[in-house]
Amino acid sequence: MKLTTEQLRAFDEQGYVFMPGCFSDAEVALLRSEAEAILGQRRQEVWREKTGAPRTAFAAHTYNEAFRLMAHHPRLVEPLQQLFGEPVYVHQFKINAKAAFEGDVWQWHQDYGTWARDDGMPEPRAMNIAIFLDEVLPINGPLMLIPKSHRHGTLMAGHDRSTTSYPLWTLDNDTVRRLAAEAAPAGGVGIVAPTGRPGSVLMFHGNLVHASPPNITPYPRKIVYLTLCAVSNHITRFNRPDWIAHRDFTPIVPVEDDALTRYAQARQVAA
Amino acid sequence: MKLTTEQLRAFDEQGYVFMPGCFSDAEVALLRSEAEAILGQRRQEVWREKTGAPRTAFAAHTYNEAFRLMAHHPRLVEPLQQLFGEPVYVHQFKINAKAAFEGDVWQWHQDYGTWARDDGMPEPRAMNIAIFLDEVLPINGPLMLIPKSHRHGTLMAGHDRSTTSYPLWTLDNDTVRRLAAEAAPAGGVGIVAPTGRPGSVLMFHGNLVHASPPNITPYPRKIVYLTLCAVSNHITRFNRPDWIAHRDFTPIVPVEDDALTRYAQARQVAA
Repeated sequence: MKLTTEQLRAFDEQGYVFMPGCFSDAEVALLRSEAEAILGQRRQEVWREKTGAPRTAFAAHTYNEAFRLMAHHPRLVEPLQQLFGEPVYVHQFKINAKAAFEGDVWQWHQDYGTWARDDGMPEPRAMNIAIFLDEVLPINGPLMLIPKSHRHGTLMAGHDRSTTSYPLWTLDNDTVRRLAAEAAPAGGVGIVAPTGRPGSVLMFHGNLVHASPPNITPYPRKIVYLTLCAVSNHITRFNRPDWIAHRDFTPIVPVEDDALTRYAQARQVAA
Repeated sequence: MKLTTEQLRAFDEQGYVFMPGCFSDAEVALLRSEAEAILGQRRQEVWREKTGAPRTAFAAHTYNEAFRLMAHHPRLVEPLQQLFGEPVYVHQFKINAKAAFEGDVWQWHQDYGTWARDDGMPEPRAMNIAIFLDEVLPINGPLMLIPKSHRHGTLMAGHDRSTTSYPLWTLDNDTVRRLAAEAAPAGGVGIVAPTGRPGSVLMFHGNLVHASPPNITPYPRKIVYLTLCAVSNHITRFNRPDWIAHRDFTPIVPVEDDALTRYAQARQVAA
């Protein structure tokens, strides 16, 4: 799958591309049930909220076949090969749970800020692909983005180790206020929160400023974040465990477009 | 102002009535600037978040002329006289700040649960009228309601004194999940979050289950909550300070419909 000229222009201007309906109901049903099983496991890759609810599961593509197929999926990999003009590898793989009632905030940040500071990634030639496993609603802790903020490079940030269970390089309020004001249309709001059905996909620039609020509703909001990095731009510091910031820089060879569908069918036959 | 037959039917079925554009830009501009001044004051009626940001200001109608006029406004008072079939008095008056970046959660609760348990209010013949002073967006901590939940009477609740700076009788997650499931259309979501411009008004039943998430955006979301109670249903226990749960049961005599507009004009001339 390739991005259209219009999508490339929108990505350049706004810093993100939203693609509803990228995965089918059957593909998502498989991924959702696998994600729920993984988030229920006690293992080092599954981090928990301060309440004990699952917060994020790392590296599921290394121990789960459905997520291995997703991380190699041409609908996700090929657009990034196209954008970076070279092969890509998996830098990070997270299933963020944003559990019903307990999913906590992710403060305002740029992902590349962490990849640069913690992992020594040379350039922001990596990006996040968010795959919605549940319906993302305005009320269940949707991802919020500040359009155009990717054009400001890597902004000053402080290392927040206390707000949630996950340490993060976060931006100060004045910076967020300024970027939102710059992004706002006249009299409008400079923050967007794409919502949509399971199977929707959101690709966003490594420097795009984003956050997500707590989820106080009964509706879970699971999103997979697949981070793909240009192979020539691989990380150079290994401060974080290799199941958080991967050290296998082998170029991804995409699977067939129907690989997830066939795997879901095979699982159903076996069941 | 009187509610229409259609509004009365919707209130009975859904537990709330939303009225966009109830107050004009000029009326709201006055109220917003007065609210900001009050929230900046150090006084016992202004409660703060754990961060120090203003959370809620009580009883502003007793020490501010603009809010005195609002608490006596016919667009708010007359619909409740109509609903209760008798005169009403002010049981509580709050300006909830939901400050930019710092406005914290209000957990799931019923207001009448507190009025009954803490104040000895005999029946749920009082209700909240929310007047939007800022634009309420999906992203800045909107009020969330569970439609039809007012039909379940007063539900079991626990007294939460730790989550925020404000003690509240809150519902457990299983109850919220069940009520939302009952309210949901087939395949849909059983929670609504009315959004709209400043000057919009939301009236909701004292037993309607509601909550609001934290505000992590640069956009403040100030709402006035005017609680009017049928005079014959006045409270019978005086556990809380009289600037939180008022003890003056004098029936409200509404002011003229243009009282706020004229006061705003007079202030501008004087300025």
